[in-house]
Amino acid sequence: MNYRLAFLGFGNVGRALAELLLAKRDELKSIHDITFTVTGIATARHGQAVDASGIDLPLALELGRNGRPLNALSAGPVPDNFLEFIRCSGADLLFENTPVNYETGQPAVDHLRTALELGMHAVTANKGAVVHAYHELSELARVMGRHFFFESTVMDGAPIFSLFRSALPVVRCKSFEGVLNSTTNLILTRMETGESFEDAIAYARQTGFAETDPAGDIDGHDAAIKVAALMTVLMNTPTKPGEVAYSGIRDISMEMVADAKANGERYKLICSAEFDGQKIRGRVAPRRVSSASRFYGIEGTSSMIHFETDVLGEFSLVENDPGPQTTAYGLLADFINAVRN
Amino acid sequence: MNYRLAFLGFGNVGRALAELLLAKRDELKSIHDITFTVTGIATARHGQAVDASGIDLPLALELGRNGRPLNALSAGPVPDNFLEFIRCSGADLLFENTPVNYETGQPAVDHLRTALELGMHAVTANKGAVVHAYHELSELARVMGRHFFFESTVMDGAPIFSLFRSALPVVRCKSFEGVLNSTTNLILTRMETGESFEDAIAYARQTGFAETDPAGDIDGHDAAIKVAALMTVLMNTPTKPGEVAYSGIRDISMEMVADAKANGERYKLICSAEFDGQKIRGRVAPRRVSSASRFYGIEGTSSMIHFETDVLGEFSLVENDPGPQTTAYGLLADFINAVRN
Repeated sequence: MNYRLAFLGFGNVGRALAELLLAKRDELKSIHDITFTVTGIATARHGQAVDASGIDLPLALELGRNGRPLNALSAGPVPDNFLEFIRCSGADLLFENTPVNYETGQPAVDHLRTALELGMHAVTANKGAVVHAYHELSELARVMGRHFFFESTVMDGAPIFSLFRSALPVVRCKSFEGVLNSTTNLILTRMETGESFEDAIAYARQTGFAETDPAGDIDGHDAAIKVAALMTVLMNTPTKPGEVAYSGIRDISMEMVADAKANGERYKLICSAEFDGQKIRGRVAPRRVSSASRFYGIEGTSSMIHFETDVLGEFSLVENDPGPQTTAYGLLADFINAVRN
Repeated sequence: MNYRLAFLGFGNVGRALAELLLAKRDELKSIHDITFTVTGIATARHGQAVDASGIDLPLALELGRNGRPLNALSAGPVPDNFLEFIRCSGADLLFENTPVNYETGQPAVDHLRTALELGMHAVTANKGAVVHAYHELSELARVMGRHFFFESTVMDGAPIFSLFRSALPVVRCKSFEGVLNSTTNLILTRMETGESFEDAIAYARQTGFAETDPAGDIDGHDAAIKVAALMTVLMNTPTKPGEVAYSGIRDISMEMVADAKANGERYKLICSAEFDGQKIRGRVAPRRVSSASRFYGIEGTSSMIHFETDVLGEFSLVENDPGPQTTAYGLLADFINAVRN
């Protein structure tokens, strides 16, 4: 079965996904009988291309890597805007990889809704769309007989949502606790070597793990939106990021990190959600942990989540040293799981 | 959709499964539209029962707990042997929970083959059947349009096989490393408190984690068969337990454990498989690990597996404090996944 794919966003993650699709082309065919044609690629600053007969993906990758416009690859005139692009793409599945909007989830929500209304599967790495429209988009997908999947929104491509959805039927998540923000964990790990907060941020920027404005990570917004997404999907508790009590790592000084280290301890930014007797509450806060903590050994950009469940006891998932490739894998897995179900 | 279920083996795990099925009855119906009728239960020492109209499961549980024979629950004459039992059960799915045979996998392999030939799904917690007949039984299942699933054979009910099968399509496992035998890990953890090897074994027996003859665990057979199962299924490398180079923990003395502890280290029985340049080699051996090791914090009966993959980098799964309930959950998950696919 051949699937037409549209890419909305063709940055590091979008291009890593394109490379992964090409690398796994033979296995997709031989194992899953899946072939694909990319019928649309849209970017915010480097143009768009739409071609029902298939865009030359290696060429698009080369243009994308060099920051050159994609318009030359388009078979016809380029659509006026992203919603028009989605319509013109004629795709069976949209990969939505636009930047996160913490406040409203837009415009990603509109992109995903449009794709689903047109009968496409909708796959995204955008956390904003999950916390602001999970129930709406899931219900729309159900009605349309399609899927809305978003594995890459938490812990990159590590299987969190698909784990509960497919591998762990009827398991209920009672609580979770995790280290879910790579940037802050990298900064805290660097500070243990005596590096200042500012230098650690500079390093995180330089290696591509922090944004130009890293406030979203440092002040805990990114972690809070992940907690809200997990509570919404895994604990059936619709939660906005603002409902998560969160603080970041800005107040963790070099002296505090050094004092912890001298005592065999470390600071970690811990994300959690649990039932407090009245309701399920989400929280993000730095915590000083000893070597007895399961989070002690989670260094650098690695992450970990620990679940307490009703019938499978407690278990954890650890992801080591993620990158755009692992995020891209989550999107690929969503594609395969959407069309094979 | 209603499914007729047969239990071959009704010990701790089989009974925990029966309890779990009853506890999750409403969710199975509401979430997955699955209802069930138990049409057969067979045990080695407490009789059998077959009833096409459905066995009273709570009553069977009470008899089983008290070691009383099940024959009174049978609608007709009790079958002569287990293969005859499988035929008479008229089930849609067999839960095979007979004891492991390291050498041949029998008689579990015959039970599972018979079930599949009769058009049943075959679900087992029996490692022997996986290492001795994975390819044969999987191919038979494919031909019959049924499933052969065995999630509970490694790390109890934690999702290992289903993770790769469903959540991680097209990911290749390149190597793994883990602490996979609860009994030896419990013994090593107890020895750190100054308990002797013999007393630690006695404790493990008393709490139900070690067999009356714990040699299978202590000498590494159990760990080796798990390595062989993982290599066979996840690395596409058919492997018999005897092909895994293994040693156990019998030579780890109290003095060695105390010396490690004094240096902030611990002994762990490490299971692994990796490509050595020529072929994939499985190994089980004790290793002294420092607090920097990911296995350092895996205490008592907990277990952990770490995977290196081609496109999802490295990740780990940790299971805390398993019991018959978690093994039972793996069997339940296999049932649900078999019938919903």
